[in-house]
Amino acid sequence: MIIIMKRNASKEAVDHVSNIIRSKGLEVHLSQGQEVTIIGVVGDKSRLADQNLEIAPGVDRIVPVTESYKLANKKFHPQPSAIPVGNTEIGPNTLTIMAGPCAVESEEQLLLIAHEVKKAGATFVRGGAYKPRTSPYSFQGLEEEGLRYMAKAKAETGLNTICEVVSEAAIEAAVKYVDMIQIGARNMQNFQLLKEAGRSGLPVLLKRGLAATIDEWLNAAEYIMSEGNSKVVLCERGIRTFETATRNTLDISAVPVIKAKSHLPIIVDPSHATGVRDYVSPLAKCAVAAGADGLMIEVHNNPACALSDGPQSLTFPQFEVLSDELIPYAKLAERKFR
Amino acid sequence: MIIIMKRNASKEAVDHVSNIIRSKGLEVHLSQGQEVTIIGVVGDKSRLADQNLEIAPGVDRIVPVTESYKLANKKFHPQPSAIPVGNTEIGPNTLTIMAGPCAVESEEQLLLIAHEVKKAGATFVRGGAYKPRTSPYSFQGLEEEGLRYMAKAKAETGLNTICEVVSEAAIEAAVKYVDMIQIGARNMQNFQLLKEAGRSGLPVLLKRGLAATIDEWLNAAEYIMSEGNSKVVLCERGIRTFETATRNTLDISAVPVIKAKSHLPIIVDPSHATGVRDYVSPLAKCAVAAGADGLMIEVHNNPACALSDGPQSLTFPQFEVLSDELIPYAKLAERKFR
Amino acid sequence: MIIIMKRNASKEAVDHVSNIIRSKGLEVHLSQGQEVTIIGVVGDKSRLADQNLEIAPGVDRIVPVTESYKLANKKFHPQPSAIPVGNTEIGPNTLTIMAGPCAVESEEQLLLIAHEVKKAGATFVRGGAYKPRTSPYSFQGLEEEGLRYMAKAKAETGLNTICEVVSEAAIEAAVKYVDMIQIGARNMQNFQLLKEAGRSGLPVLLKRGLAATIDEWLNAAEYIMSEGNSKVVLCERGIRTFETATRNTLDISAVPVIKAKSHLPIIVDPSHATGVRDYVSPLAKCAVAAGADGLMIEVHNNPACALSDGPQSLTFPQFEVLSDELIPYAKLAERKFR
Amino acid sequence: MIIIMKRNASKEAVDHVSNIIRSKGLEVHLSQGQEVTIIGVVGDKSRLADQNLEIAPGVDRIVPVTESYKLANKKFHPQPSAIPVGNTEIGPNTLTIMAGPCAVESEEQLLLIAHEVKKAGATFVRGGAYKPRTSPYSFQGLEEEGLRYMAKAKAETGLNTICEVVSEAAIEAAVKYVDMIQIGARNMQNFQLLKEAGRSGLPVLLKRGLAATIDEWLNAAEYIMSEGNSKVVLCERGIRTFETATRNTLDISAVPVIKAKSHLPIIVDPSHATGVRDYVSPLAKCAVAAGADGLMIEVHNNPACALSDGPQSLTFPQFEVLSDELIPYAKLAERKFR
Repeated sequence: MIIIMKRNASKEAVDHVSNIIRSKGLEVHLSQGQEVTIIGVVGDKSRLADQNLEIAPGVDRIVPVTESYKLANKKFHPQPSAIPVGNTEIGPNTLTIMAGPCAVESEEQLLLIAHEVKKAGATFVRGGAYKPRTSPYSFQGLEEEGLRYMAKAKAETGLNTICEVVSEAAIEAAVKYVDMIQIGARNMQNFQLLKEAGRSGLPVLLKRGLAATIDEWLNAAEYIMSEGNSKVVLCERGIRTFETATRNTLDISAVPVIKAKSHLPIIVDPSHATGVRDYVSPLAKCAVAAGADGLMIEVHNNPACALSDGPQSLTFPQFEVLSDELIPYAKLAERKFR
Repeated sequence: MIIIMKRNASKEAVDHVSNIIRSKGLEVHLSQGQEVTIIGVVGDKSRLADQNLEIAPGVDRIVPVTESYKLANKKFHPQPSAIPVGNTEIGPNTLTIMAGPCAVESEEQLLLIAHEVKKAGATFVRGGAYKPRTSPYSFQGLEEEGLRYMAKAKAETGLNTICEVVSEAAIEAAVKYVDMIQIGARNMQNFQLLKEAGRSGLPVLLKRGLAATIDEWLNAAEYIMSEGNSKVVLCERGIRTFETATRNTLDISAVPVIKAKSHLPIIVDPSHATGVRDYVSPLAKCAVAAGADGLMIEVHNNPACALSDGPQSLTFPQFEVLSDELIPYAKLAERKFR
Repeated sequence: MIIIMKRNASKEAVDHVSNIIRSKGLEVHLSQGQEVTIIGVVGDKSRLADQNLEIAPGVDRIVPVTESYKLANKKFHPQPSAIPVGNTEIGPNTLTIMAGPCAVESEEQLLLIAHEVKKAGATFVRGGAYKPRTSPYSFQGLEEEGLRYMAKAKAETGLNTICEVVSEAAIEAAVKYVDMIQIGARNMQNFQLLKEAGRSGLPVLLKRGLAATIDEWLNAAEYIMSEGNSKVVLCERGIRTFETATRNTLDISAVPVIKAKSHLPIIVDPSHATGVRDYVSPLAKCAVAAGADGLMIEVHNNPACALSDGPQSLTFPQFEVLSDELIPYAKLAERKFR
Repeated sequence: MIIIMKRNASKEAVDHVSNIIRSKGLEVHLSQGQEVTIIGVVGDKSRLADQNLEIAPGVDRIVPVTESYKLANKKFHPQPSAIPVGNTEIGPNTLTIMAGPCAVESEEQLLLIAHEVKKAGATFVRGGAYKPRTSPYSFQGLEEEGLRYMAKAKAETGLNTICEVVSEAAIEAAVKYVDMIQIGARNMQNFQLLKEAGRSGLPVLLKRGLAATIDEWLNAAEYIMSEGNSKVVLCERGIRTFETATRNTLDISAVPVIKAKSHLPIIVDPSHATGVRDYVSPLAKCAVAAGADGLMIEVHNNPACALSDGPQSLTFPQFEVLSDELIPYAKLAERKFR
């Protein structure tokens, strides 16, 4: 931690701050510039947690030197993690494809889609049973019934299953039926839910919040991990910006940034990132080229009748074409795929 | 609802879309331009909810004509609402000042602050018992113990009380102790929590999400109201932008925009919006001039030792000066204050 | 300047960086933490301008301590400046109102509007003769002819005049006709134009760029001032964010932030910030309450026929009402007005 | 163009708007909904350019149906364009690599870099002779001298050359020395410069503005093209968002969006988009996978001493490795490269 003093900070002000630091058993390194004095703090900064040095007289600003997340931090775990889920693992040696409808609508719909996406190379079927919708008057999901269909789809196809959870009750139900739970973008800082997800012990796919910085995202992962659950996979799904040509702006740089800062795997969801079917395939390939560990893609038997998010879903033939096109990209990335 | 067809849309495509609409018992108005055909839909659009017309062949895009929120909409409730809370009301005739520490730290701290802010003109004491913090290693709040101190502060001072809730359990506890609950920015689209807040029957202060549009915010209010609880007050607390000189960017335009679109009261929180103590007073005055129904302001007995958010808290003398300065602004706005 | 080394930086790396700094005649202050080494640089940092220490081995990042703008910086000029323009001055003791049409359309239009806004209390008439328009097929302005009408409006009404310039040629013409030139948001980092504006010697109103940070804005002011022209006034006119309810998002916090960082006056343009007539008046009052030194407001004799930006223009009666309402706010701010 | 009336719009209001439209020789299509009336306009909308229908009584909002750019629009030119530049062309069949230093520093530096990047597969050498810098005290470029070195680099290596221009004078000089000019992000809406670039007849690389929507970007291209110069290539270089882990946020979706809306080629600049050397290579590959027609990459003989933007420059060996890695990606995209 570095404390930058104001240009006109008095010697008293510098001494005052230095004394507070020393009183907590920490060391002070003074750097007296021509215009500005800088105070370096050496030792365990958590001892200063109840001191708001930022508003002590003469202080201009405080610059943190180390990240606040530890378990998710690459510095303490330099090798990329591979997260075991169901009969597979998500990590540096595989290209994981999660595919399925935005919302589970019926048993037959889910089974039909599961069979088709498996045929085309997916290793997970995804499908929302609890839907967070902007308007209370929109379709909200089949809830536990939908989870039961997920379990059935797994039994019939052998695919791994993933489903979004939006409450403690949903986590309790999901534990019984699916291989992995998803925390959606709107709940990325629902810290209560993060802790529950940590306690569940299930692998967690943590989507990035619409306006979350990468640091906040890794801190959200830390919430899950600090409950003893290290099975966290990140998912970039677009951030909110001024551009309206796509529903969100896919922050593809997040892939190499996460690889530099964390050991956790990261997958990319081009369907929600763009909201436009025609852009899904180019962005799926681009994500693999950028180093992503997997993809989450919306596929629907009849996009025109999907109860939720139809315009961004691929049809079966479109998904099959994409999956075939991904083969050489997976090979270039030295990842196991099909 | 208006459907704009693609430039090269065939007659078949136009007929196909028109037939779907008519099959749901709705009327079609065709507008054949030189370049583009437009299809107007007349009738109850909710009948089209399971049709993704957006991806029907030849469709370019769909333009909604009416908002998806109803209960929060000014169109159906033209007069501004006054929301009764405790011994007061929040609305067009009053200037409500909520003041207090970011986090409740101890009984004596809260009582001290409550007495001081009351003296200076506040009608609510605020204080966080459940703190949503970016890092799991930061102070998370006193929880129910903090709520008990809030109740004590009310008993001693007669001030109304408000406290943030972050889970169903917190709502259940809050009902017993405080006059109003707050849904924080990070939970604005935690729809489960919104519904619980609605069912609680308590007045709810709904803070705007960091990246929430005003329409999404009003839809979040609609979640609460659709559970039968119309006692909702909105709170603008800054949105996330590229600017870093302030912690968030106070969207002051939200005040007149909400007044144009909704009958719900709106208050402004300049403390969280800026994160800088020196900017709180000018922005508090500006919010009243813009038409806000109230202010939420952080005040602390010793900002330098606050466990959370110290740099933005006012001291007692600073709060007193601000409150005095607000008197003529409240008068100009024809609002009751002190 | 502070250099934060990487966690695993070797002693050689630290020495290498230290030696580069010392070789430029600067002093080094080492701060050896438990995890990280920090190098403070003491002396004139400009000597390091051709060294990219950021990519030297072992360097994590560099934290600047001092701002790059000097002439615009409050630290070296603590008193707020009052900028003389025409027969008035813009600064801490006055409330300046610039009013007029977005675009100059004809001589009679401009004269009519000038007389009306003068009557209602404006001290400047504004009007665009050179219009930067998104599409090349939109009305681009009357150019020098428009400037001549501005001069005539000044002669007839005694109002001061201001006009946007978009090129060197426009500056050369403007010098002959108007009291103040304006650099628009789209040209805020057109450094060539900034320098020319500096050399012109005319007072300059510098609008903030749509995506410019406050630091970049002050650096743009520095470009003008470094040419020997200290007559710069800033204008906040909204930044680009994700919100679409208003055309831009008025960053009202910019007013107190500029007051804290610079001695230059700042005015606010609520017309361009919102793009909606109904929001102009509440935001005008709010800007004065926040500490703004003036306002720029679009007024038109017939908003429904304005060639540019009609929806945000006030009518004469609306402007008159607003101007009357501003009187008590100007009084509270201890500013001369009407 | 569609006009959506307010819920309570009177018949008079509807008639008034309809009459204005008809008076301009256009047709009106009325669509009377249960809640809202919609007016479709058929014919050449430019005849309504001087009518601000948006503020006519009873009008809620206006929805444009067609884009304002024509020459850049794919609708009128469905085949992707290949732009001839120097001895090559930029377009759907080639992968163009522009490489070189951010700023031209000396003749020997530029020649050394030109030889190296040519060897590694670049077909253009880039280098700034006029540098738009945030602070007036930063290095501003060698100007015409730098252009002369560019011409020499072309003569010695046979590479095509590209250089940013920031003023009319710079364009006049550039015409004599280089094959292609670049309009930088900060000047994307410097309409005067766009027109001059159009008149110059030289191929133009148009970088996207930091806060420019894709529609504004295509309108900026339209400015150049409307001067009779159709040789325009677009360059995505990152947009400004709240995320600070990278200098800007690379909007990779812009590649497929541009391909859907325009026939113009688009290249990607991962160096400026991220500002971090380590992220350049993964994003370069990802851009090719997304469909980009080329890349602009900063390469420097000694990044640690670069006068500008060192931290994002690749070394020669790094560039060579990247160029080799791009070969299979170019092949997958069926583009000629090396």
